[in-house]
Amino acid sequence: MKKLFILFLYSLPFFLQSQTNDSTQIRALYDFNLTEGNCYENLRSLCKDIGHRLSGSNSAKNAVKWAELLMNNTNLDTVYLQQVMVPYWERGNLEKVYWKNSKGQKTFLNSSALGGSVGTNGVLKAEVIEISNWGQLQDFGKSKIAGKIVFFNRVMNPTFISTGNAYGSCVDQRHSGASRAAEYGAVGVLVRSMTLKFDNNPHTGSMTYLDSTNRIPAVAISTKDAHDLSLALTNKDVVELSMELSCLQHEDAISYNVIGEIKGEEFPDEVILVGGHLDSWDIGEGAHDDGAGVVQSLQVLETYKKLGLNPKRTLRCVMYMNEENGNRGGKHYAEMVRKSGEKHLFALESDRGGFSPRGFSIDGTKLQLEYLQGFKKLFEPYQIHLFSKGYSGVDIGPLKNGKLCLVGLVPDSQRYFDFHHSKADVFENVHKRELELGASAISSIVYLVDKYGLPESESIKK
Amino acid sequence: MKKLFILFLYSLPFFLQSQTNDSTQIRALYDFNLTEGNCYENLRSLCKDIGHRLSGSNSAKNAVKWAELLMNNTNLDTVYLQQVMVPYWERGNLEKVYWKNSKGQKTFLNSSALGGSVGTNGVLKAEVIEISNWGQLQDFGKSKIAGKIVFFNRVMNPTFISTGNAYGSCVDQRHSGASRAAEYGAVGVLVRSMTLKFDNNPHTGSMTYLDSTNRIPAVAISTKDAHDLSLALTNKDVVELSMELSCLQHEDAISYNVIGEIKGEEFPDEVILVGGHLDSWDIGEGAHDDGAGVVQSLQVLETYKKLGLNPKRTLRCVMYMNEENGNRGGKHYAEMVRKSGEKHLFALESDRGGFSPRGFSIDGTKLQLEYLQGFKKLFEPYQIHLFSKGYSGVDIGPLKNGKLCLVGLVPDSQRYFDFHHSKADVFENVHKRELELGASAISSIVYLVDKYGLPESESIKK
Repeated sequence: MKKLFILFLYSLPFFLQSQTNDSTQIRALYDFNLTEGNCYENLRSLCKDIGHRLSGSNSAKNAVKWAELLMNNTNLDTVYLQQVMVPYWERGNLEKVYWKNSKGQKTFLNSSALGGSVGTNGVLKAEVIEISNWGQLQDFGKSKIAGKIVFFNRVMNPTFISTGNAYGSCVDQRHSGASRAAEYGAVGVLVRSMTLKFDNNPHTGSMTYLDSTNRIPAVAISTKDAHDLSLALTNKDVVELSMELSCLQHEDAISYNVIGEIKGEEFPDEVILVGGHLDSWDIGEGAHDDGAGVVQSLQVLETYKKLGLNPKRTLRCVMYMNEENGNRGGKHYAEMVRKSGEKHLFALESDRGGFSPRGFSIDGTKLQLEYLQGFKKLFEPYQIHLFSKGYSGVDIGPLKNGKLCLVGLVPDSQRYFDFHHSKADVFENVHKRELELGASAISSIVYLVDKYGLPESESIKK
Repeated sequence: MKKLFILFLYSLPFFLQSQTNDSTQIRALYDFNLTEGNCYENLRSLCKDIGHRLSGSNSAKNAVKWAELLMNNTNLDTVYLQQVMVPYWERGNLEKVYWKNSKGQKTFLNSSALGGSVGTNGVLKAEVIEISNWGQLQDFGKSKIAGKIVFFNRVMNPTFISTGNAYGSCVDQRHSGASRAAEYGAVGVLVRSMTLKFDNNPHTGSMTYLDSTNRIPAVAISTKDAHDLSLALTNKDVVELSMELSCLQHEDAISYNVIGEIKGEEFPDEVILVGGHLDSWDIGEGAHDDGAGVVQSLQVLETYKKLGLNPKRTLRCVMYMNEENGNRGGKHYAEMVRKSGEKHLFALESDRGGFSPRGFSIDGTKLQLEYLQGFKKLFEPYQIHLFSKGYSGVDIGPLKNGKLCLVGLVPDSQRYFDFHHSKADVFENVHKRELELGASAISSIVYLVDKYGLPESESIKK
């Protein structure tokens, strides 16, 4: 490793000289993306011609066909489907949640069943008990919780600057709330929506059951409704909560990762991967999550094609299936890579929305991190400043092997959870230029990694 | 100057030590703004209780009262009005613009008279000639232009990363188009709206007449309409254009800059200014332009008050009048400062929208620039990266004297011109957290400048 680093240092003068060429090339990548790129139109088509596309659904099947056709139309060298079995959950038609006061008045809640939840099998009626941290579950104990609906109302912390961190510190109640409440005999779960916005828009998302606990239904409610319900509970105004959900978990279904690539001229066996996930939740249009990521990823390869650039290494775009509720696509892809021994150098995922890009979150070795930080100056004219150690993405995560460098595109995070997993995640809420700037930033870092390689890879200095 | 720099270097160890305290204090400023700050609610009130507020209008008068009351309610040490005479232009009720083809069919245009335009005094009908650069005016000459309506259709360049630069390189056609076309005998002017968005939303803005030319009416049309009209002209489908505007320029009116301050404890005679402009165009609600700036500026002083911080220097919030069509407030304020000899150390303007802040644009001496760049590390946790030499703001610009450091808050620019000067610039299009993060960034830099002073000021090292 040390030897490679020394080789790398030796190549530094050459490297610095060529930064002028690089800055010209990066300017050309941005210019193309901001004037002739198709990612915005592709996103429109995905959102409007296909719509939302939960794993296993008919529209997910349509999305696979859409993606394959689009890749073929982009004249990639190879386009193929990688089969993967995915869970198939359906919300069903019935979703009704309300609470009743002592006068018998009903207050209906803006709700969205959590993905993976069982149905209520008729109407579930029970008292509600509010919980704002895990400790309270234990404090209340079975005596107070059994037979009730637990209402998880922990608020996302607004003082986190990155909203992703606020989400990360709170999403456990959505993910594990049902199973943990069931341990105490709860019969159902309400969860405050994962958003910093105070509105009537409920946000769904994944949850899982432990095999050891009863499977009780779980539903997200809007932040305003959560606030009002909490107030009503404090005022002892809530007699009972009624919940009716017709969710169904079907047999696993056949689906696909959709893959397209441009063969590398010098090192065709080395793969540089860009990707996002094709599946989405079953409400809204999956525009930011993650329509944006898949169209940006394809845009990188389209840009190479349209500008007549020939990559040294193989550029591969992967549109993963089933990030939202299982990550089967990501796991299966990584397994296939391990089995085939195919060499991956670099993998970048865009799955944090199509907002104005701020930089990159790098999950690689120290040397790789410093190496990529060496490109910082080239990105300054584009207001790309973040080159920090951090998490990459759910789909590419399983590729992690200690050598491969994983990277996540980091857009501005402030508006992401306004839309995420909700009806509001539609094409109209994605900004054309912001989306294109993201595609440009990815194209630029891919260009540099393809041209110069990466330390701790066999190809550095080739 | 050198002496001061050396003094500054001497103070460096102390300075570095105290960065820990500073980072704690900045964290507290952000925490307060993101949880208890009132700027979002103040913006709602300005937009909804007052609405748009063009200089001289009744609603501008209401805005002055609103601002004075709000400052008083914030318990500032001093609140006062600074009288200034402002232009008073009215659009009037009538605004109708359409073109007619050879079959007599009319196509109505989404239009907005430019601020300052004369009315048409009845219906103006004429042929249209399209111009995309100044050179064409000369090329066509009087023979082709006289008696016609000139259609300025230069497109904002999408490859600029900062949309402000794209605007800056294009806005001359809006500002000077009427006078320059009148030199060639044109009878009216249409201008493509200053936005990168392709939609039906027209954007107004200021224009001025030269005394030497005829005053001909000028109106902005939406980008889609500009595109379609251009196409129709190419197809020789446009027989004539009809324009009817009832704009009126009244006598100058009395108005006010609204000023509030907290007296400094150690150096009360040194002023640190934060500001924006209270006036807006007469369509929309002036939410981003510049409701955001004025509520953020006041938020800085409110934060000091609520957190019980006593500034060393005098913190002054100035809500300027008449930035949009005359900058009378900014010029008058600067004149008063010069007359009184009042010492200003630092002035910051927020007038680029209430979007996610990216940093600061610094118009000061080299030493001041480097000094402020020394604070960069403290801002990294808040994703504030830009500390570059650049333009500050229209209102504070006249204060420039070679010593005072002028700064503009730089938010992400991608969405600004979607809303700017149009019906779409409403409260609903401002994001609560983005607005608050801007207020936090301003509070933080003001805190540092107040605490440490600035080089090339008499107070450094005090």
